[in-house]
Amino acid sequence: MSHKKKQRQTGQRAPASNKHYPKEECGIVGVYNVEEAANHAYLGAYAQQHRGQESAGIVSSDGERLYRYAGMGKVADVFTPQKIRQLMGRHAISHNRYSTTGASFLRNAQPIRFESRLGTMALAHNGNLTNAQTVRRSLEELGSLFQTTIDTEVISHLVARSRADNFTDALIEAVTQIRGAYSLVVLTGDTLYALRDPNGFRPLVMGKKDDGFIFASETCALDIIDAEYVRDIEPGELVVVTPRGVTSLFPFAKTSQNLCIFEYVYFSRPDSLVFGKSVYNTRLRMGEILAEESGVEADLVMPVPDSSSVAALGYARQSGLPYHMGLIRSHYVGRTFIEPDQKIRDFGAKIKYNAIAAVVKDKRVVVIDDSIMRGTTTRKIVKMLRNAGAKEIHVRIASAPTRHACYYGIDIPSPSELIAATHTIEEIIKYLRVDSLAYLSLEGMQRGAADIEGGSGNAGYCTACFDGKYPVRLDENEAIYSNQKTLFSEYEIEESA
Amino acid sequence: MSHKKKQRQTGQRAPASNKHYPKEECGIVGVYNVEEAANHAYLGAYAQQHRGQESAGIVSSDGERLYRYAGMGKVADVFTPQKIRQLMGRHAISHNRYSTTGASFLRNAQPIRFESRLGTMALAHNGNLTNAQTVRRSLEELGSLFQTTIDTEVISHLVARSRADNFTDALIEAVTQIRGAYSLVVLTGDTLYALRDPNGFRPLVMGKKDDGFIFASETCALDIIDAEYVRDIEPGELVVVTPRGVTSLFPFAKTSQNLCIFEYVYFSRPDSLVFGKSVYNTRLRMGEILAEESGVEADLVMPVPDSSSVAALGYARQSGLPYHMGLIRSHYVGRTFIEPDQKIRDFGAKIKYNAIAAVVKDKRVVVIDDSIMRGTTTRKIVKMLRNAGAKEIHVRIASAPTRHACYYGIDIPSPSELIAATHTIEEIIKYLRVDSLAYLSLEGMQRGAADIEGGSGNAGYCTACFDGKYPVRLDENEAIYSNQKTLFSEYEIEESA
Amino acid sequence: MSHKKKQRQTGQRAPASNKHYPKEECGIVGVYNVEEAANHAYLGAYAQQHRGQESAGIVSSDGERLYRYAGMGKVADVFTPQKIRQLMGRHAISHNRYSTTGASFLRNAQPIRFESRLGTMALAHNGNLTNAQTVRRSLEELGSLFQTTIDTEVISHLVARSRADNFTDALIEAVTQIRGAYSLVVLTGDTLYALRDPNGFRPLVMGKKDDGFIFASETCALDIIDAEYVRDIEPGELVVVTPRGVTSLFPFAKTSQNLCIFEYVYFSRPDSLVFGKSVYNTRLRMGEILAEESGVEADLVMPVPDSSSVAALGYARQSGLPYHMGLIRSHYVGRTFIEPDQKIRDFGAKIKYNAIAAVVKDKRVVVIDDSIMRGTTTRKIVKMLRNAGAKEIHVRIASAPTRHACYYGIDIPSPSELIAATHTIEEIIKYLRVDSLAYLSLEGMQRGAADIEGGSGNAGYCTACFDGKYPVRLDENEAIYSNQKTLFSEYEIEESA
Amino acid sequence: MSHKKKQRQTGQRAPASNKHYPKEECGIVGVYNVEEAANHAYLGAYAQQHRGQESAGIVSSDGERLYRYAGMGKVADVFTPQKIRQLMGRHAISHNRYSTTGASFLRNAQPIRFESRLGTMALAHNGNLTNAQTVRRSLEELGSLFQTTIDTEVISHLVARSRADNFTDALIEAVTQIRGAYSLVVLTGDTLYALRDPNGFRPLVMGKKDDGFIFASETCALDIIDAEYVRDIEPGELVVVTPRGVTSLFPFAKTSQNLCIFEYVYFSRPDSLVFGKSVYNTRLRMGEILAEESGVEADLVMPVPDSSSVAALGYARQSGLPYHMGLIRSHYVGRTFIEPDQKIRDFGAKIKYNAIAAVVKDKRVVVIDDSIMRGTTTRKIVKMLRNAGAKEIHVRIASAPTRHACYYGIDIPSPSELIAATHTIEEIIKYLRVDSLAYLSLEGMQRGAADIEGGSGNAGYCTACFDGKYPVRLDENEAIYSNQKTLFSEYEIEESA
Repeated sequence: MSHKKKQRQTGQRAPASNKHYPKEECGIVGVYNVEEAANHAYLGAYAQQHRGQESAGIVSSDGERLYRYAGMGKVADVFTPQKIRQLMGRHAISHNRYSTTGASFLRNAQPIRFESRLGTMALAHNGNLTNAQTVRRSLEELGSLFQTTIDTEVISHLVARSRADNFTDALIEAVTQIRGAYSLVVLTGDTLYALRDPNGFRPLVMGKKDDGFIFASETCALDIIDAEYVRDIEPGELVVVTPRGVTSLFPFAKTSQNLCIFEYVYFSRPDSLVFGKSVYNTRLRMGEILAEESGVEADLVMPVPDSSSVAALGYARQSGLPYHMGLIRSHYVGRTFIEPDQKIRDFGAKIKYNAIAAVVKDKRVVVIDDSIMRGTTTRKIVKMLRNAGAKEIHVRIASAPTRHACYYGIDIPSPSELIAATHTIEEIIKYLRVDSLAYLSLEGMQRGAADIEGGSGNAGYCTACFDGKYPVRLDENEAIYSNQKTLFSEYEIEESA
Repeated sequence: MSHKKKQRQTGQRAPASNKHYPKEECGIVGVYNVEEAANHAYLGAYAQQHRGQESAGIVSSDGERLYRYAGMGKVADVFTPQKIRQLMGRHAISHNRYSTTGASFLRNAQPIRFESRLGTMALAHNGNLTNAQTVRRSLEELGSLFQTTIDTEVISHLVARSRADNFTDALIEAVTQIRGAYSLVVLTGDTLYALRDPNGFRPLVMGKKDDGFIFASETCALDIIDAEYVRDIEPGELVVVTPRGVTSLFPFAKTSQNLCIFEYVYFSRPDSLVFGKSVYNTRLRMGEILAEESGVEADLVMPVPDSSSVAALGYARQSGLPYHMGLIRSHYVGRTFIEPDQKIRDFGAKIKYNAIAAVVKDKRVVVIDDSIMRGTTTRKIVKMLRNAGAKEIHVRIASAPTRHACYYGIDIPSPSELIAATHTIEEIIKYLRVDSLAYLSLEGMQRGAADIEGGSGNAGYCTACFDGKYPVRLDENEAIYSNQKTLFSEYEIEESA
Repeated sequence: MSHKKKQRQTGQRAPASNKHYPKEECGIVGVYNVEEAANHAYLGAYAQQHRGQESAGIVSSDGERLYRYAGMGKVADVFTPQKIRQLMGRHAISHNRYSTTGASFLRNAQPIRFESRLGTMALAHNGNLTNAQTVRRSLEELGSLFQTTIDTEVISHLVARSRADNFTDALIEAVTQIRGAYSLVVLTGDTLYALRDPNGFRPLVMGKKDDGFIFASETCALDIIDAEYVRDIEPGELVVVTPRGVTSLFPFAKTSQNLCIFEYVYFSRPDSLVFGKSVYNTRLRMGEILAEESGVEADLVMPVPDSSSVAALGYARQSGLPYHMGLIRSHYVGRTFIEPDQKIRDFGAKIKYNAIAAVVKDKRVVVIDDSIMRGTTTRKIVKMLRNAGAKEIHVRIASAPTRHACYYGIDIPSPSELIAATHTIEEIIKYLRVDSLAYLSLEGMQRGAADIEGGSGNAGYCTACFDGKYPVRLDENEAIYSNQKTLFSEYEIEESA
Repeated sequence: MSHKKKQRQTGQRAPASNKHYPKEECGIVGVYNVEEAANHAYLGAYAQQHRGQESAGIVSSDGERLYRYAGMGKVADVFTPQKIRQLMGRHAISHNRYSTTGASFLRNAQPIRFESRLGTMALAHNGNLTNAQTVRRSLEELGSLFQTTIDTEVISHLVARSRADNFTDALIEAVTQIRGAYSLVVLTGDTLYALRDPNGFRPLVMGKKDDGFIFASETCALDIIDAEYVRDIEPGELVVVTPRGVTSLFPFAKTSQNLCIFEYVYFSRPDSLVFGKSVYNTRLRMGEILAEESGVEADLVMPVPDSSSVAALGYARQSGLPYHMGLIRSHYVGRTFIEPDQKIRDFGAKIKYNAIAAVVKDKRVVVIDDSIMRGTTTRKIVKMLRNAGAKEIHVRIASAPTRHACYYGIDIPSPSELIAATHTIEEIIKYLRVDSLAYLSLEGMQRGAADIEGGSGNAGYCTACFDGKYPVRLDENEAIYSNQKTLFSEYEIEESA
């Protein structure tokens, strides 16, 4: 109780704690008019597994009825051939969800399916709404009953309460009442909707497979099923696919374009096109610019694998220093990994990484990482490299300092935990115990993306986590309300069969 | 499709197929102000396991927050000590649910918990509403989203939509909009409600344990936790237990009393008091009257175990014939039992029963059963007894012929499947291949109950499944709608972690 | 360490603690030349589920190769249709095992299968060897490696080490080296052996099904698959079934016949023939004799269900008192049942039983039980009946006082825990708080069996647990060694996939 | 049947099919006198996860008793904190096992533990015996019963049958009867043995942790627990660690040294020292020599990730061509991955790999792979790169052509399936549809290793899989016998709880 009060007094505008409120960092797929649609939706979700490993779900349609299955865990663990076979029909949507601490319940798994006056509908969402709590509260006042703790559920209630006489109008009515970041795929018996919010925070692409259509967060989900990339869904565009064909609607007022630049830094797969550009090439170019901006005399360049490997390669190319893999990353870390007891725990980071003494011993090394959040992992890696004999350690970060919360679907710690928000570069250098540290400039990031052909991103990225310029603000009472929600989450007990 | 049409043409007033629509034949428990309330609710549910084995759930309250856990299966399989410990607090309600083929999903498990404008509430229901679909449809029209396929959920939506400014008024407002059979226990942070519908179809008792209160469907749930039986909740009574004490309200218009007489015939445990009378003694007395009404010359009396054992004992007492256990029933039949392949299946009923030749060989036997639905099981048992050498077989049924559907929470096959609704006694005798057959008269049943002291049941039982006199009718469109629901159920896939 | 030493000093001749050493109280089935043999073996094991619920296993043969599957738990839980289908062939043996505390491991599950010089063989055993440790120790000295902690494994090593040039001779050579109680079914590619030890402690019957043969511990396993009872395997008889026909061998020296009389008292199903007599009728007759021997003035007779129901019926017949079911037994008690915490535990026995006040209130009741071991359960039941209002309680036991350990396969507590071994009747009456107590005389038990037609048991029963007259003694060092084994068991960790 | 005959006629000397006979490609760890030994053994096994993912097991010792737990799957999935806590004591050994199709049973999981005349012993084995079947057959003739289908079990039987009066002599007696490849760790109550076969096929290192000792296959298992690398166990050396200290014995006749060169090519982790040399540097050097030997004009160099990344880096350094990651590898492929149905399967390899068009489009690429077995994966990758737009594809293999079976513990397909054994370079080029193909020379491989400091490997590697020069031959009848065993495996049904 006193805790709640304290929140109200001190932190009214503070962003929701990322530990508790489940952000929607996810991958979505839509499949229309393709044989064994559920199997394709499964493979697409599998290709986008890096976007979320907490839960996975598929809803399919045989043109009339919707079949659903979802479970906790990775795509390949949730589904069996039998389950896939039961998901009949030529249309399907899938979802995989990012794992955050706390409210990790099966009933929060997407796609959500619901019945309304107009029939049955299913919905998968990537993003985060900035007025979810406000809308939820007012719906609850009107007597709506919520079954999940995810923001996505408000969309379904808005659709259900619409007085429109068809699904398309009801969906438009619903989404014009929500704000924030949302890429959506929505399935009814015979119609598939694909929608990006007006700012276009999160990606969504359209592809072609035989006579059918595929929608996905990233093109790697098209590649795995041999679908051809057609184009990006535009910010504010609602694509409607029916047996009669494809329609494109723009139901929103025009607004600024704000593509999430963090997708290039870390989130997307390097083999994907995101916002029309190759993630690999963009990341490589940012590494080159990082070397231009912050070169240093050294013997070799090495990444913190795997997410920084391409940027490190760019840095090595530009600087002329040899590229080496001085850190090995284990791919076997799973949910149930047993942390060693206190006494033997201080070797900590070796569970995930090991330094190769034969590479770094007596060497001056440039270590490339994509970003620094709390700094604790970087510090452990630096210590490990020192123990392996590195003579000098120069850390270079392939993005600008992360100093602000994200309201649009990336799970960034609260500013009070972000080392770049609370410390100067000199203090960070001291904390990490490195010989030097430099970040890529925000301008450098934008130039890095602009230098790569394709897309229209140059007209506008969201860089709020770096510069605090939020294109869409949180509603006044979002933060507090979501903190109350976290209290709610704490007394849930996970339900199972 | 054609099936649906046929339903519409021929069966608009036909009851929903019992195979698909999950009837609420269940056991409920409420615990207020008792240490380790969840543990007591667990034991109460365990004692009432015979009332439902499909799923089990508990919601507890620490005075402020509600904790929930539910799962598929029997009480003792669903809960672990760890789960029970997590269900904190001094108040709790529990539910166990009857297993019907079809829509057996975790999300249909009770108690249901929901958040409303007024706070969090949980609810466990025994019974069946006769206007659930009508209410649901109108709520859906208003934009309510339903998450389960159980009738109970309409109550939560009605509470949520109430404009009343406290839970008690909102609950009263909700229940005055529903019709049919319902015994309910409802839990908020610090209040427990126990409610019986105005007709009093299903039982609900009140007990005392130390300084606290226990509510349950049958007194056997009081016995297992050493609680003392106080009295029955009256038809139409709403008992409200708060930290300030116990209040009794009667929010309904007066109507007829219609206690389910089938509770005595089969459903309740013989060691319970139901509607104030000993089930054992009532069943014994009905067996005696059956012997009076339809005595026959024979060598011995034997029950179809276990539900008919007491009635058979009554028959034996009255007739003077020796009582024997000529059939053994296996208690190991479980969910996963493997039916033998077609070729070896015709020995069928031996999986559950075996006849003892040493008892029945060359004997004229009177076989007592509590009721006959389709007649298939009885036929198999008769065949088994013939093969074991019985010379004559006289079947006596300790209830009247079951000819009508039940709308109030007992899972009785549809009339078209009830042998007594479609065949004469002579035809049934021929079908069963017995030497004689007689049922207890309806008057005999009522006299049987009246002869036993206690309760006020004599003023009115529901005997609709025997005589078709329904105290509360189904809404016009209930049947059809619920048939549509069954189609819905068929394309559900069970969800799990 | 000190514990081990103490054992050696004080308890050299003491029987193994029944808590730890897994006794072979089990059910076995053999199927030869029947379609879907594994399915029949499964059903037979299912019918004999009461003989052991710890684990279940089947080995089948397609005439050449042996297929095996076994698991922990009840038959119906261990097997799936898919597993049964994988167990191919027209021959099969099955086993289900009694649950004892302690060494409950999957690798102890039977049938055991092993490869030897002569080919592959599988073996299922009901009984207990009295020289298992002696033989095991000498085999270990010779370099044999043991994989289980069950006595049965020594038989397989003896077969493997035999220099005989065929399976039949090797098996005979092996079994002539073991002593104690054993009914065995043994399967090779195309031969089925059924064998009873020379004293005939445990039952084994032979049946006919179409052109094939069925062997089982009890006839209820024949009934369930519609097989016809042919005869008992005789003590010391080895029946060999091959494609060429059935042979009967008697490889042992003649010795006394010692059929386990406890099978009638408690262990066998009432619908079985055991040692050629109806268990139902034998149990009924013993109840009658008990009434003759120890009649008492009372208002009613009631059993402790379910095992004493038939004896109570016999007592009621003979005494003329009315028979009633004053105790209800729950059939839902499972492995995972959560014992209530200490504070609410003293109502204890109500989990399994509940007294019916409506039956016993103000009544003088005769309570029939089959036997008393420690007396704790009886004491709780008596207390429960007193609380339910019984005026007088007279306990009558349908067997003689149990005072000695069993070395032949029944899990009887050690004499120090047997109340009849350590207390006089008067002391027991005081402990149980009953008004009177009487046991059936040993002579009465034997007369009870003799009065029933069939079998040859009258020539000799094993009554060692009642009178301490052991037909086959334990080897000198069996007890100590098995105590060491129990220490071994304690540091086992159950292995699983 | 006909299959068996064919095997006998054509393939008497052919190596066992690698599909069925479980080769011992594994990782082993030994921990002596370290707190929470099981936890350290767990972490060591976790670091060596790449050496085997089929099963994992640990045996610990508290100085007297041995505790065992093993399960199917990866280390992090098999063990829970509770299981680790149950594995008490300061000594432990662990094992993880390679996954081969077929005989994947829990009972084949290591370490194996057995009791013998001398006490309890546990054993973990990396390698493959060349006379396992011969020894097993002769032990079976003597009456030994085998419980697993792994070659390791013969060692335990040889120990058990030894007449020596202490474990050290019994172990020496046993291992002098076996031939082939074996690195072993063996644990009794208070003694740990670490042993390498006389040829030294498989690696085994010794490390120091506080006052205790660690043994492991690779140094990465030392790194993860902060243990210090001391030295390699020498070929033919038996290290004995007791409470009194460390002894080194050389019980074998002197023979040639034959270290498995394939450990450098593929099997070991790049951050390990193996045979005293850095795997990273050796692999890098081999890549450089490959470029020297088989340079080609091109635009970029890229690896088939992850195993070829270091060699590709070496090739890029030497050739001056830019290094790129043109293929992305998914790390989420698990056991239960659902293969798409036939119709959509031909995109096959994309499940595991995806080509990045932005990297390879219109480029002449050099693709580095560590080795080619059947060629099917390489062919799919080539097709994928072509579809992504690569103009020229030059494949360079960082090892010599693999043409022969391995009898020493590496799971290499049989020669009839090895493309280099059955096709010329030109034919392979045609099959793969590449522009050119070259292998590293055998001499280049050996020079690559020799150029790296440390170790004594230069005196002798096993290169049998490349040149067919087997240091230790298979026994005459090994191959045939193991083929019979595979038939045995086929009618096993996996057993579980």
